[in-house]
Amino acid sequence: MSGPAAGPRLSDRQRLSWLRLIRTPNVGPASFRELINRFGSAEAALEMLPELMISGGANRIVRIPTIAEAETELEAARRAGARFVGIGEADYPALLKTMDNPPPLLAVKGEGAVFRLPAVAIVGARNASLAGIKMARMLAADLGRDGYAIVSGLARGIDTAAHQGSLSTGTVGVLAGGLDVPYPPENIGLCDEIAERGGAIVSEMPFGWQPRAQDFPRRNRLVAGMALGLVVVEAAQRSGSLISARLANEMGRLVFAVPGSPLDPRAAGCNALLKDGATLVTEAADVLGALAPLAGTRPPRTAPLAEAPDLSAMPPPGENERADVLEALGPTPVGVDEIIRHTGLSAAQIAMVLLELDLAGRLERHAGGNVSLVFERS
Amino acid sequence: MSGPAAGPRLSDRQRLSWLRLIRTPNVGPASFRELINRFGSAEAALEMLPELMISGGANRIVRIPTIAEAETELEAARRAGARFVGIGEADYPALLKTMDNPPPLLAVKGEGAVFRLPAVAIVGARNASLAGIKMARMLAADLGRDGYAIVSGLARGIDTAAHQGSLSTGTVGVLAGGLDVPYPPENIGLCDEIAERGGAIVSEMPFGWQPRAQDFPRRNRLVAGMALGLVVVEAAQRSGSLISARLANEMGRLVFAVPGSPLDPRAAGCNALLKDGATLVTEAADVLGALAPLAGTRPPRTAPLAEAPDLSAMPPPGENERADVLEALGPTPVGVDEIIRHTGLSAAQIAMVLLELDLAGRLERHAGGNVSLVFERS
Repeated sequence: MSGPAAGPRLSDRQRLSWLRLIRTPNVGPASFRELINRFGSAEAALEMLPELMISGGANRIVRIPTIAEAETELEAARRAGARFVGIGEADYPALLKTMDNPPPLLAVKGEGAVFRLPAVAIVGARNASLAGIKMARMLAADLGRDGYAIVSGLARGIDTAAHQGSLSTGTVGVLAGGLDVPYPPENIGLCDEIAERGGAIVSEMPFGWQPRAQDFPRRNRLVAGMALGLVVVEAAQRSGSLISARLANEMGRLVFAVPGSPLDPRAAGCNALLKDGATLVTEAADVLGALAPLAGTRPPRTAPLAEAPDLSAMPPPGENERADVLEALGPTPVGVDEIIRHTGLSAAQIAMVLLELDLAGRLERHAGGNVSLVFERS
Repeated sequence: MSGPAAGPRLSDRQRLSWLRLIRTPNVGPASFRELINRFGSAEAALEMLPELMISGGANRIVRIPTIAEAETELEAARRAGARFVGIGEADYPALLKTMDNPPPLLAVKGEGAVFRLPAVAIVGARNASLAGIKMARMLAADLGRDGYAIVSGLARGIDTAAHQGSLSTGTVGVLAGGLDVPYPPENIGLCDEIAERGGAIVSEMPFGWQPRAQDFPRRNRLVAGMALGLVVVEAAQRSGSLISARLANEMGRLVFAVPGSPLDPRAAGCNALLKDGATLVTEAADVLGALAPLAGTRPPRTAPLAEAPDLSAMPPPGENERADVLEALGPTPVGVDEIIRHTGLSAAQIAMVLLELDLAGRLERHAGGNVSLVFERS
């Protein structure tokens, strides 16, 4: 393995502020990026947060994690042998930067070098058949031997087989909970082995976080985001693996599926993907052939995030502008360009109002940069 | 079932001559057509045969079946409850006319009405798995219920299951040997049942003919030719079903395949077809959706063959023309248009020389109307 890559690094103080900011309720990857771009630094953004939340119409001001709380999490990471990697830093997974709203801070345990390999995701059913497990392990081993890192979700069945097949060549496990809360628990040993053998375990969730149902699609998004393509080995209809495939497709990743008998319910999801145009895989060569032209090129769709610009001098939007943007919003997701046409306001002003609403917990962000208002159920 | 369809019918005398002509060695469907078009009738062609064979350079004159021999075969057909259907007649399978060189005379046992349904071929491995057999039976039953006749090759495994699944809705079995030589023998009962329940058994081979290895691809050609599309249910690599799929594709039929696990060798052929662009099938709806737009339209690629034109008045080609055409021919198949360009002769003259060579056993006809010389191994 090569040593740590050179490149910009966050200072300890910056990293602490980034952690406090991303751990603040209502601050997601999109508003994090907006805040840094607007106020020049996480530290400056943290100061502005209460005011912005009030402007956005928050019922109550959410509690920003204290410095002590963030230091406690940093200490938990250190104890677990892990670290936080910021999106501008060299050890951040290269391809992850090309997805919509990548996590600004990633908890990582293991080797950063694995993130510099081109990656393939291999995912599938937890209740996999022996044939499916054999297939996943074989594909992972063959693709690993050809220089690809294998990314998966550390779940039972196919995911576990994919990691096991690529232990010696480099594998990346993405957790839906905190890095110190491996799920399922029987994979604690596998997590350690991955990190020790040149691979890495990553999570965007706080240390100690117990994964809830809604955290798994979010985890799946990272699995797809880190890879050039996603291979589904066995999957039932309406399974999480199909959500991963949809997310991968939306991100422009290639989607592959291993076929199976129509009489086997564990093949139904894969066969459905194939009908929808996924590439059929019976051996690693099918994946290699399709990915080889892409493996050299990773165009960043999102400009790298650095603590440089300070747009805080821009006059804040007034009540009129807020009212105009609110009027343009509803429960149906709309694009920012539609809001521009509707209100006649500048993109910068609209972005600011949206940021305030987001921080106030009143905005939902969707794929493709679309936004909608959150309506409280009464 | 509806009664016999109206339309042109061969007289008993014509049918006898047709049978004698098509049973003559070196007379295949292509030369049969040439002969009828050239000399106006099979009867006239039979008279010309010895002369044509000598012109073509035959080492020895082949024996033309006598009237008595042909009557013996007609009697064998009657005893078997079968009849001979000519290509111009109403009971001739409609779609078969659209393939290259359809057989001019077909031995048929059963209902001609089944040939007027749109048809789907279902074929596959003889050593099929239970899942494959279940799948074939299910597809056949569902497609039959939707108004399609099911065509297959009466082989063990998938073919048998396809016929069984569509017994009540109409199924067509194509034999590689004579109609009175069912192969495999255990399907004698199935053959009878098909004919009794509104389906049909057909063969282009003489009564009493024991099928040889090379007769099976020829049978597969008819299976594909009678159907709008061909579904392969289970097939190993390098199996006869893949040849059927290739033939079907060359004829412009849609090719469908049922996927299976890459670890199952009986799925390898189907998965390979899917990689090559076959349509994936997990249920009958996949076939119906693709065929529905075609089921109403059956453009005849070949003009119907009737005993009408008599081109025998055309002067026969001389030795110079024969030498020119022979010079243009070799072991590599060439098209008639290339021979026209090379020799400057008319298409009619070239067709006549080719016919002579064909009847002399010196010509091989290939797909797309290409021809090559037969070289005797010394």
